[in-house]
Amino acid sequence: MALTLTIPDLADLARGAAFLATGGGGNPYIGRLMVERAMRETGRELTLLDVDDLADDDFVIPTAMMGAPTVIVEKLPEGLEAVHSLHALERRLGRKATATMPIEAGGVNSMIPLVVAVRENLPVVDGDGMGRAFPELFHETFHIYGVSGTPMAVSDEYHDHAIIEAHDNFEAEWFARGLTIRMGGTAFIAEYAMDGATAKRTSIRGTIRLGLQIGRTIREARAAHTDPFTALVSMFATTSYTHARIIFTGKITEVFRRVEGGFSKGTVKLIELVENSARTPRSMEIEIQNENLIAIADGQVLAMVPDLICILDSESAEPITTEELRYGQRVTVMAVSVPEIMRTPEALAVWGPRHFGYNVDYVRIENL
Amino acid sequence: MALTLTIPDLADLARGAAFLATGGGGNPYIGRLMVERAMRETGRELTLLDVDDLADDDFVIPTAMMGAPTVIVEKLPEGLEAVHSLHALERRLGRKATATMPIEAGGVNSMIPLVVAVRENLPVVDGDGMGRAFPELFHETFHIYGVSGTPMAVSDEYHDHAIIEAHDNFEAEWFARGLTIRMGGTAFIAEYAMDGATAKRTSIRGTIRLGLQIGRTIREARAAHTDPFTALVSMFATTSYTHARIIFTGKITEVFRRVEGGFSKGTVKLIELVENSARTPRSMEIEIQNENLIAIADGQVLAMVPDLICILDSESAEPITTEELRYGQRVTVMAVSVPEIMRTPEALAVWGPRHFGYNVDYVRIENL
Repeated sequence: MALTLTIPDLADLARGAAFLATGGGGNPYIGRLMVERAMRETGRELTLLDVDDLADDDFVIPTAMMGAPTVIVEKLPEGLEAVHSLHALERRLGRKATATMPIEAGGVNSMIPLVVAVRENLPVVDGDGMGRAFPELFHETFHIYGVSGTPMAVSDEYHDHAIIEAHDNFEAEWFARGLTIRMGGTAFIAEYAMDGATAKRTSIRGTIRLGLQIGRTIREARAAHTDPFTALVSMFATTSYTHARIIFTGKITEVFRRVEGGFSKGTVKLIELVENSARTPRSMEIEIQNENLIAIADGQVLAMVPDLICILDSESAEPITTEELRYGQRVTVMAVSVPEIMRTPEALAVWGPRHFGYNVDYVRIENL
Repeated sequence: MALTLTIPDLADLARGAAFLATGGGGNPYIGRLMVERAMRETGRELTLLDVDDLADDDFVIPTAMMGAPTVIVEKLPEGLEAVHSLHALERRLGRKATATMPIEAGGVNSMIPLVVAVRENLPVVDGDGMGRAFPELFHETFHIYGVSGTPMAVSDEYHDHAIIEAHDNFEAEWFARGLTIRMGGTAFIAEYAMDGATAKRTSIRGTIRLGLQIGRTIREARAAHTDPFTALVSMFATTSYTHARIIFTGKITEVFRRVEGGFSKGTVKLIELVENSARTPRSMEIEIQNENLIAIADGQVLAMVPDLICILDSESAEPITTEELRYGQRVTVMAVSVPEIMRTPEALAVWGPRHFGYNVDYVRIENL
C-alpha cells in the first residue's frame, strides 16, 4: 500500500537510517536537508510504493551517492546530481523510470532517492539492496540475485558524467570508485536498473518504512520518558528484522581508527560499568570497516555481519557513527537480525564475516 | 587524393611515426603488428583520404590508445579495443563514422586508427590533431580550435567501457586518465567526433603521408649508402614541416629519468666529439617530459616545443625513444619546424614552452 511522506517524517527517517547504517553510511542529515529543500521548492510530497505493489513491467532505477560521506559536509551537493545520473541512464537505456529506490537503506543513501523522487515526481519503492549500510556497490541483493549493476551513470556537481558498462559488478565498482575519486571524492549514481518483476524478486522489502519506525520509536519513547531500548526490541519483533537484543552496555575506553584503501577501519573497546566492583566488569571489542562488523565480548562473538551492530547513546538511544565515537561515551550496543534474503549462502558469500576477512562462520544473532 | 597503403608501407610509417614522436608516443612496433594482422585476416588494404577530400557532412571519429605505452609490451592489445570504443561512441551519437583518423601522428597512435580502419572497412583521414606526439588529450588542434573531446568512449581488453561527458576537455582528460589507470594502465579511446567541415578546419594535414615519407627517406638513404640526414633535410623542405636542421652531433654522457605524476621526465646530456682536442667540445642538454621539449647548447636554446627535437642514431638515423637513451650512444639531434596551424597564439597557449613550465617565449626554429 502506498504511503505518503511529508517533511516532519524526515527527521524520524534520518534517525532510523542512521541506526540501520551501523556506524557507517554517512550521516543522513545533509541528505535530509536536500529532500526538505526539494519538497519546499516543488510543493510535492513523497509517495512510498510497496515492493509488492510494483507491476512486473514497471521500470525501477535506483539512485545513490557514492564516495566518502565525510566529503559532502564540505562539498555540499547541489541536489540535482543524482537526477542528472537518472536522466543519463534513461537516455542510455531508451526508457524512463517509473520509480526510483535506494540501493542502501542506511545512512545518507536513504535520502538521495527521495530527492530524486521529489524532483522527478516519481514514487520511491520502499525497499533496497543492502538492508543496512555496506561499503561497496556489489554489496547488494540486486548483485547477489543476478542483476547487472551496469550500465551505470556516475555524475558530479558540474553534471559531468560517465556511463560505465562492465562485464561484472566488481569491475563496475572498481571503475566507478576511480571516477568518484577524480570527481572530488563524491559522485552520484544511477544503477541496477530493473523491471518490477526483478525488483520484487531481489529487493529487501520495507526498509524505508523500517527506518521511519525506528526513528519514531526512539522519538516517542523519549517524549514519553520510557526506555527507548525496550521499545525498539518490541518494535523490531513486529518486522522482518525480528530479533533485537542489547548485547552490551558500558563506556568507550579506546577508539582506534585508520583510513586504509579508502575505507575507515578500526576497533572500538568498551568496558562495563559495575558499581562497587561487585564483580569483574565485562569488556567488548567491536571491529569496524566503515560499518560495525563484529562484536566480541571476553573472547566470545556476540554478533556479526550481516546482522546489525548498532552503537547507541545510552541516554537518548541516538545512533553514533564511527566518526563520532569518543573515549568516555556511555553507550548501549544493540544487535538486530536481518531478513532471510540477506542470510542465504549466496548472500553470505558476498557479505558474510569471511568476505570481510574474519575467520569465523556466520552464526545468526538469535543463535548466539 | 586517396592513397592505398599495403603491408610493406607499414615499416616506413612506423619509423616515420617514431621520428615524429620526438622520443615519446610509444614505440609503433606493436601497433604495426596489429595493423598487419588486421590486413592479413581481412585481406583488406588501407585507404588514406586527404583532409581536403572530406565532404562537409562526412562524420569523422578519431581513435587512439591512451595510457603508458610501456604497458602494451606486456599487456598486448587484442586489436579490437579501439573498434569497440568506436562502436560505443557511434551508439551514443546515433551516427556511424564515415572515416577514422589519428589524434596523434607520432608513436603508436599512428597505427591504432589504421587497425580500426581495416577492421571496419573505413578510410583513414590523412591528418591528426597533434602533428607529433604529446602527453595529454587536450594537446590537440581539435581542442585548440573548439571541438569537444566528449562524448568520449574508453574501452579495455574486456570491452568494458565508459562513455564520458565533461564540461571541458581538461576534465575529460582527467576522468579518462583515471579510468585508464583502473583499466590496467592502457585503454583505447574514440573521441573528438566531428563532421568533415570541422575536420577540414581543425586538422593538421598530411601527417600520415609525412610519416611514410620520413621512413622511406631514411630507408632509401641507407640502401643507397648516402647520408640520411641530408636526405631528410631536403625532404622536409618540400613539406609543411619545412625547416629541418641538425642542431647537434655527439655522444650521450648522462641520462636522468624519473616518473612524476604518471609522466616520464628527465634530462639527457650530450657532448660533441672533437678530434685531438682541437677546441673545447660543445655540450647540449635536452629536457624531456615524455617527449623531447627543449634543447639547450652551452646556455643557448636551439629548439623548443612545439617544434620537433629528434634524437637519431648517428649511423642509421633510427629515431631513439626516451626509454632507449643510453650512455655512450652516438647521436644526431635534428630539429624540425611544425606547420602554422600548430604555431598560432591559441596553439602556443596549449603546447608552447610555458605550458610545460619553461620560462621562455616560443621562438621558431628557423629564427634561432
